[in-house]
Amino acid sequence: MSNLAEQLQKMEAHNSIFESAVRQLPLPVCAAFGSPTQPQAVTFANTSRVLSTKDSESVAKSFANSVQASGNVVLASSGTNAKAAQGKRVAVLFSGGPAAGGHNVVCGLKRVLGAGNTLFGVKPGPKGLLKGNLFEITDADVASIINTGGFDFLGTDRTKIKTDEQFAQVKATCVKHNLDAIVIIGGDDSNTNAAVLAEYLFKNVKADGSGVQVIGVPKTIDGDLQIGDLLPISFGFDTATKIYGEMVGNILQDTRSSLKYWHFVKLMGRSASHVTIEVALQTKPAITVISEEVAEKKMSLAAIVDQIARAVVARAAKGMHHGVVLVPEGLIEFIPEMNALIAELNEQIAHHELAFSALPEDAKPAYILDKLSPENSKLLASLPSYVVHMLLAERDSHGNLQVSLIPTERLLVDMVKARVKQLDAGVAFSAHTHFLGYEGRCGAPTLFDAAYTYNLGLTAGSLILDGRTGYMATVTGLTNGGAPQAIPLTGLLNIERRHGKDEFVIEKALVKMDSAAMKYFVSRRDEWADDDLFASPGPRQLWGPAAYQQPISVALNSGSSSLAFKLG
Amino acid sequence: MSNLAEQLQKMEAHNSIFESAVRQLPLPVCAAFGSPTQPQAVTFANTSRVLSTKDSESVAKSFANSVQASGNVVLASSGTNAKAAQGKRVAVLFSGGPAAGGHNVVCGLKRVLGAGNTLFGVKPGPKGLLKGNLFEITDADVASIINTGGFDFLGTDRTKIKTDEQFAQVKATCVKHNLDAIVIIGGDDSNTNAAVLAEYLFKNVKADGSGVQVIGVPKTIDGDLQIGDLLPISFGFDTATKIYGEMVGNILQDTRSSLKYWHFVKLMGRSASHVTIEVALQTKPAITVISEEVAEKKMSLAAIVDQIARAVVARAAKGMHHGVVLVPEGLIEFIPEMNALIAELNEQIAHHELAFSALPEDAKPAYILDKLSPENSKLLASLPSYVVHMLLAERDSHGNLQVSLIPTERLLVDMVKARVKQLDAGVAFSAHTHFLGYEGRCGAPTLFDAAYTYNLGLTAGSLILDGRTGYMATVTGLTNGGAPQAIPLTGLLNIERRHGKDEFVIEKALVKMDSAAMKYFVSRRDEWADDDLFASPGPRQLWGPAAYQQPISVALNSGSSSLAFKLG
Repeated sequence: MSNLAEQLQKMEAHNSIFESAVRQLPLPVCAAFGSPTQPQAVTFANTSRVLSTKDSESVAKSFANSVQASGNVVLASSGTNAKAAQGKRVAVLFSGGPAAGGHNVVCGLKRVLGAGNTLFGVKPGPKGLLKGNLFEITDADVASIINTGGFDFLGTDRTKIKTDEQFAQVKATCVKHNLDAIVIIGGDDSNTNAAVLAEYLFKNVKADGSGVQVIGVPKTIDGDLQIGDLLPISFGFDTATKIYGEMVGNILQDTRSSLKYWHFVKLMGRSASHVTIEVALQTKPAITVISEEVAEKKMSLAAIVDQIARAVVARAAKGMHHGVVLVPEGLIEFIPEMNALIAELNEQIAHHELAFSALPEDAKPAYILDKLSPENSKLLASLPSYVVHMLLAERDSHGNLQVSLIPTERLLVDMVKARVKQLDAGVAFSAHTHFLGYEGRCGAPTLFDAAYTYNLGLTAGSLILDGRTGYMATVTGLTNGGAPQAIPLTGLLNIERRHGKDEFVIEKALVKMDSAAMKYFVSRRDEWADDDLFASPGPRQLWGPAAYQQPISVALNSGSSSLAFKLG
Repeated sequence: MSNLAEQLQKMEAHNSIFESAVRQLPLPVCAAFGSPTQPQAVTFANTSRVLSTKDSESVAKSFANSVQASGNVVLASSGTNAKAAQGKRVAVLFSGGPAAGGHNVVCGLKRVLGAGNTLFGVKPGPKGLLKGNLFEITDADVASIINTGGFDFLGTDRTKIKTDEQFAQVKATCVKHNLDAIVIIGGDDSNTNAAVLAEYLFKNVKADGSGVQVIGVPKTIDGDLQIGDLLPISFGFDTATKIYGEMVGNILQDTRSSLKYWHFVKLMGRSASHVTIEVALQTKPAITVISEEVAEKKMSLAAIVDQIARAVVARAAKGMHHGVVLVPEGLIEFIPEMNALIAELNEQIAHHELAFSALPEDAKPAYILDKLSPENSKLLASLPSYVVHMLLAERDSHGNLQVSLIPTERLLVDMVKARVKQLDAGVAFSAHTHFLGYEGRCGAPTLFDAAYTYNLGLTAGSLILDGRTGYMATVTGLTNGGAPQAIPLTGLLNIERRHGKDEFVIEKALVKMDSAAMKYFVSRRDEWADDDLFASPGPRQLWGPAAYQQPISVALNSGSSSLAFKLG
């Protein structure tokens, strides 16, 4: 075998030149933790901030132990923990969709727990916790996963722990492995899980009457887990938006090179448009649709289409037969009339189920059009046949349409094409579609996410060694060195009606019309539509002068004076 | 306006932090050109290598001036050109699809032509040459485009110059702007264009009887313009494959994190599978289809599907319900039976045009199935309805099907799903599809492409100042400093039957079964299918320890002992 072939084989299984190099990157730590090479656990003390929601009273009843212990007071670090606990057995798991930096949370945890405590990995996700599938994480594991992307070290899943049987299974796992604490790395639902488990496991788990601590770590590429200055952003958002930003920047550059295509790019983000607005701020495309604005202005689908089509025609008049349109994945659910249509369709299809399902596919639209209110009937008739087909055909086990399956980007292209033709038949309009999603969840973390998550791990571990439970670990002050803090999970809970039942949930943070990021975007978007003012943010860099950038929307919303971040 | 808002506005129009930083990156130059900051033009001398093809005799007749002048002999640089011409007026244009590094070719050209000559940009592409749309390129232009991606500085188009009227238009442009030379940056077709123009403009263009020199520069992300050690790879391939490689690496990491999805990724590359094999070598996915192997082994569509489905079932048996399948864009045309089916369809639809087009869409399949040979009828019936619909519906103005419109990745998912169910109904198979194409053409060039293209520009400019015409500029020895060379374009021409006429063309280089890259890939792929051995090549780095990597397939095929490249 040739010399090169031998080298190539050694690069398999996470040993690319890049992966081997990033493992050597030093990680900064907040001053509170001391030296980066020998970070120390910190203790925590109450701050003056008390969290509350409209449902705090109900929460205090259902989460009596947790609320009594924390008083819903935010904690800040208060010096090195000289009496840090020893002998603790801690389990860590990923929950929900993957996000860059998860591995570094595990590395930070392992580092701060040190040789005096034991860290277990749970495989995969909450399901692994139910099954009691745990293994001990070693220093060698940490050395191999540090600064790498993905959740593949532990895997993940989306099991929601809510039944009595599931709670009993978790308790059995805690007893079987003699656990003292569980760290749940996840999004809004997963941190709700953490709050529920913290309360359930507060005491009387083990024979001596002691409980098991539960700490959450804020993850989600969607960026919809944000709590003002307490949690400027969840981890994974920066990496995902920088990956999408590079792709959109490349496509923008392509449009002005090829001079003949429009590209409609749908961006992941189940509900909120944070990802979309961040990518827009990075790249400055001609048109960006923001779901929250559509809802706020009660825009119809036709109005959105008309707005885009008019921009296409206006650019064509200036000789620009190209452009990029950014579309948030969750758009459809934010268009009031589409929501109304889908609701009536769900109802009518359920009501006429037998007759409807007996019809041949081709006959279904006419049958149902007849049953709908005039406005919904008109709207349905205006949609392309493949969307009508999808709206009529696919129902999940609850009788609901899976809105995320609708190819919004294709729908908009087809409707814009028709509208452009109406407005000016002489305008050339040729378009491609993209969906950027899975590519962004498991990339190698940016320096921002790598440093942030390592410090989140140090913070979560410190909370455990300080005997805390029911908190979400956070790091604030990301532009001036960073400081470990902790948010009482019960201080975030609201009551929401889901599947006909009241449930405690952490509300998703949507894009606010009066946020600095939205206002800046609004102040510039007309000029971006008028002319090509785009920029290419480029591939994220781990070395060199372009490596230290926080998300633009986060910088704007937190009032930063620059894009640079600084931890440690 | 806030301080940050001001900064953000300054970052519009190609002034992102990344773009501003890459403009400062120094570029190495081959020793032949002297100092990187003051590169000098070189002269050229004949080597002992003479190029020929099966059609050399016909070429010598049709390209008498060019062949007589060059003797189809390869040129190598032979020292600094002390008598470099002055006062030359040179035009440069992009032709065909964009590729990373094009801007640096312009920068290298401008640099070596220096203040003593004038460089014009042609907007856009060959069409701009016909229209005479030229402008003078300044040093400020060069400073702003250096190391940036895309072709947006000049734009591009795909006009093929072949009619007498077009030739006359080119001549008029040359006369109007008093041009001495044209540089065409493009792929196989564009370099054929360059050969034809070089011959046509050889003499008697201007009043004094002189001609206009024409030099080609080898561009294409597809990598199908390769000529052994004379041209190990065209520019743009490295950047495109590193962009796709990162995305595929991210997706692979996602499959093992989420543990429930297969992803079928179609990769751009109109015909050859170079891009696909390079991305496979970078990332090590479970399954990679190589078009040339399918053709060589005369595989049927069902055989390809069966092979993938069996791998899916085998992995499921080991608990792996996930994986990645790479599919080259051009696959369909390499499946012999699909080619035969499409040919018969084209024929039958043309033959029964009136009757066929009068039928309602739903009736067309049955009508045409009846007209086909038994084997083609059977094959058509085995395809999903949306593919049948596409095969029957879409014909271009020549009556041919646009094969590239077939969503091969979706077709394979649907057929594999059905086949997996037949093989083992208990196996879960859930799949997503991707097409990676436009994202890869206009990204910022890798250091490899940035350095390579700058030196290609220096070489092309040197050829002009040395009075040469009808050559393609190349740089060889990319791992040991690099050396400027020139390939006589007529030495590459073959005769191909296109649209019923003999045409001179540069043949596309396909993946060879006995190439080192293919052999290495074949030696490893079974293990990659058996277990997750993937690696993430990561985002391409412009700084730091991971920045100096040439394409793996190029390193293997050229017998390099490492992946490092070295220019200068």
